Amino acid sequence: MQTSKTLRLHHVNSTEAFAELVAALAANGMAVLEVATHHIGQRNIYRDVTVSVPAESDLETLLTTVRLLPGIIVESVVDEVLRVHEGGKMVHRGRFEVTTFAQLREVYTPGVAKVCKEIQADPELARRYTNAGNTVAVVSNGTRVLGLGDIGPLACLPVMEAKAMFYSQLVGLNAVPLVLEAKGVEEFIETVERLAVGFAAIHLEDIQTPGCIEIERRLEARLPIPVMHDDQHGTAVVTLAAVHNLLRLAGRELSEICFAQVGLGAAGLAIALLVKAAGGARVLGCDRSESAQVLARAAGVECVEFDEAIARADVLCMTTGKSGLLAPERVRNGQIILALSNPAPEIEPADALNAGAAAALDGRSVNNLLAYPGLFRGAIDARSRAITTLMKLRAAEAIAACANADEILPDPLGRQPHRAVADAVRQAALESS
Amino acid sequence: MQTSKTLRLHHVNSTEAFAELVAALAANGMAVLEVATHHIGQRNIYRDVTVSVPAESDLETLLTTVRLLPGIIVESVVDEVLRVHEGGKMVHRGRFEVTTFAQLREVYTPGVAKVCKEIQADPELARRYTNAGNTVAVVSNGTRVLGLGDIGPLACLPVMEAKAMFYSQLVGLNAVPLVLEAKGVEEFIETVERLAVGFAAIHLEDIQTPGCIEIERRLEARLPIPVMHDDQHGTAVVTLAAVHNLLRLAGRELSEICFAQVGLGAAGLAIALLVKAAGGARVLGCDRSESAQVLARAAGVECVEFDEAIARADVLCMTTGKSGLLAPERVRNGQIILALSNPAPEIEPADALNAGAAAALDGRSVNNLLAYPGLFRGAIDARSRAITTLMKLRAAEAIAACANADEILPDPLGRQPHRAVADAVRQAALESS
Repeated sequence: MQTSKTLRLHHVNSTEAFAELVAALAANGMAVLEVATHHIGQRNIYRDVTVSVPAESDLETLLTTVRLLPGIIVESVVDEVLRVHEGGKMVHRGRFEVTTFAQLREVYTPGVAKVCKEIQADPELARRYTNAGNTVAVVSNGTRVLGLGDIGPLACLPVMEAKAMFYSQLVGLNAVPLVLEAKGVEEFIETVERLAVGFAAIHLEDIQTPGCIEIERRLEARLPIPVMHDDQHGTAVVTLAAVHNLLRLAGRELSEICFAQVGLGAAGLAIALLVKAAGGARVLGCDRSESAQVLARAAGVECVEFDEAIARADVLCMTTGKSGLLAPERVRNGQIILALSNPAPEIEPADALNAGAAAALDGRSVNNLLAYPGLFRGAIDARSRAITTLMKLRAAEAIAACANADEILPDPLGRQPHRAVADAVRQAALESS
Repeated sequence: MQTSKTLRLHHVNSTEAFAELVAALAANGMAVLEVATHHIGQRNIYRDVTVSVPAESDLETLLTTVRLLPGIIVESVVDEVLRVHEGGKMVHRGRFEVTTFAQLREVYTPGVAKVCKEIQADPELARRYTNAGNTVAVVSNGTRVLGLGDIGPLACLPVMEAKAMFYSQLVGLNAVPLVLEAKGVEEFIETVERLAVGFAAIHLEDIQTPGCIEIERRLEARLPIPVMHDDQHGTAVVTLAAVHNLLRLAGRELSEICFAQVGLGAAGLAIALLVKAAGGARVLGCDRSESAQVLARAAGVECVEFDEAIARADVLCMTTGKSGLLAPERVRNGQIILALSNPAPEIEPADALNAGAAAALDGRSVNNLLAYPGLFRGAIDARSRAITTLMKLRAAEAIAACANADEILPDPLGRQPHRAVADAVRQAALESS
């Protein structure tokens, strides 16, 4: 696969030296894509040169080619992934520039005192005159980061920044990533309760099971704003959207099929419950953990062994974290498979299809990004105190309806699904109020 | 004084109706400055019309004039101060748009996992790959807001947003306003400690005395990043800068004059200590509170009665919150007066000058905005763990040096003083490391 590599290098400040570099690359089938010059010194010129190479493995050829040239020193290979994160991914700035003395006196003292007094007299006005009405806190303690486990708050910050940046891009909400040194359930809840007053909603992310369930439940009960743990409900909404379209393409109905959820962690349990709420008549659950089974049974999910789940399921959904759990020979003919564990699925979709599955998806296709921005936008716009089950069900339908006729899910970077989700959620809020 | 008023109104959707409005205003010496049309309905057109009026008191004339016109309904007078705060004053968004699938995979899963792992292995890299290296948390519990007292966290949010927006505008730092439901010293410290890991510095604001002193001291000791309570040290730095220039204009030296600080609250105590550290040989303090006196004496400040402060001071600085405390007849000839209480000073500068003062300033001229952005920028750039006394002294000198030859302080909206403060602070960090 054609790819590109960026070399940070310096060479003697002569046009010939650079011409030789370009010629040597061309002779090896490599084209210069971009050149960024950082510094021109007394003797040397310092630059990043991005080169198109036929495949990942051609980096060695590239380096050998360049190192053979006299007068060119390669300092490092620039990592594109790291580069995109450099400097952090968020910008927190004023909505406008303050340029005159009069404006300064409106924005800051003495004018601001009037705004403070109005809010003190009527706290509802904070929605209007501050960012408390349009800013989501994206909060994590980094105890369970997708595919990485408990890496702590600082190391999980890049994920929270990624989650936050999409709020603004996709639904025009502000978001602030907040990572907390608060591993325990009590200290986490207490900290979020203390800082929530300045926010319109709390997006919880990457928190250990089972603590995450209690944290979400108690914060929901105590805060007058929407609180949602995305790993549970974002995943459940997008999975349900996928199930809607998979069944549509198969010409079947949720009410007449058997849905088995294998893995009843935070996401799995939320999926099972949402499928049940959507009208799934037969929802099975499967997990070795006793406590997970207790939670699932309490919610009316029938718990079975893995063999029985495979044997009975029309739709088999897995969130176990166990790569390769489902051997291809165990797939039943016509079964619909969702193998959602990241980064490696329980079965490769291609293998499942070869083995007779009617359809198969992995976690790369089921992106939470389709759900959370619109869920929060809709709930905030409706001034709802919570994100309800009805909102989640409507969001899943809205996402499903946005996919092309022959696709399972729409493009998460498109604006349309997010508008559709926000509208559906706002509508659901109106109906239940 | 010429000013402007904005009317939210609607009128019949005809060009004549609007022409009549403009003519009627013109006949009264009022010009239309701006028109913003919000909505064009079936019958009516809805707009904000901003009109230039000769004085504040002409609002009544304006309203009478407009109400006499048939077919025009004034809905409300738009408050310019409230309007500027509408929607909140901050924007929290991504540094760039994510537009392609490849970019999505770099910014978010799976690419982001690599960045998380790098930071987990070397936490210092968070400065490079996240906003933890360039974002200041502006934190308050709203227990002591300038001129308003204990109005609580939500009502103080407009002030924190104002403080935050200047970071980006003046020194290119990100800032996040965070208001906390945490009145007690312990819960405030605990909460800030838990959320500090994602920030480059902690700006404390509008916190009750004496708690603010303990909060700052303990957070400084426990966090590896700069922590500063702006009401104390921002005020002290700008006051010292003013003192430098007042003495320069008077041809005197800090080492040979007597400086009296009346009011030893958070700001007053910080001023007295910084003037002492700057080389003030004779620094007096004055406050009725026993505990304030204890703190001041412990820092080597001689505590005296108000009468004695007036009698001995060459420079008399007041932060008492008591409007009109200093009767003009008590001003000594040639004395330099800083009457810093907001919104009403201990003596009007004009009255002090009339009474024989060599110079007089009030709190409007001594704006913290001159100090805090550069202090934090410099300390963060130097990767300093604290904002030291040396940094504050150098910041005050830098501010003083930026004023025009015949001025006491420079324009806080200019970029130059902030660059000068940041440079001076960075230099001070290098010297002491």
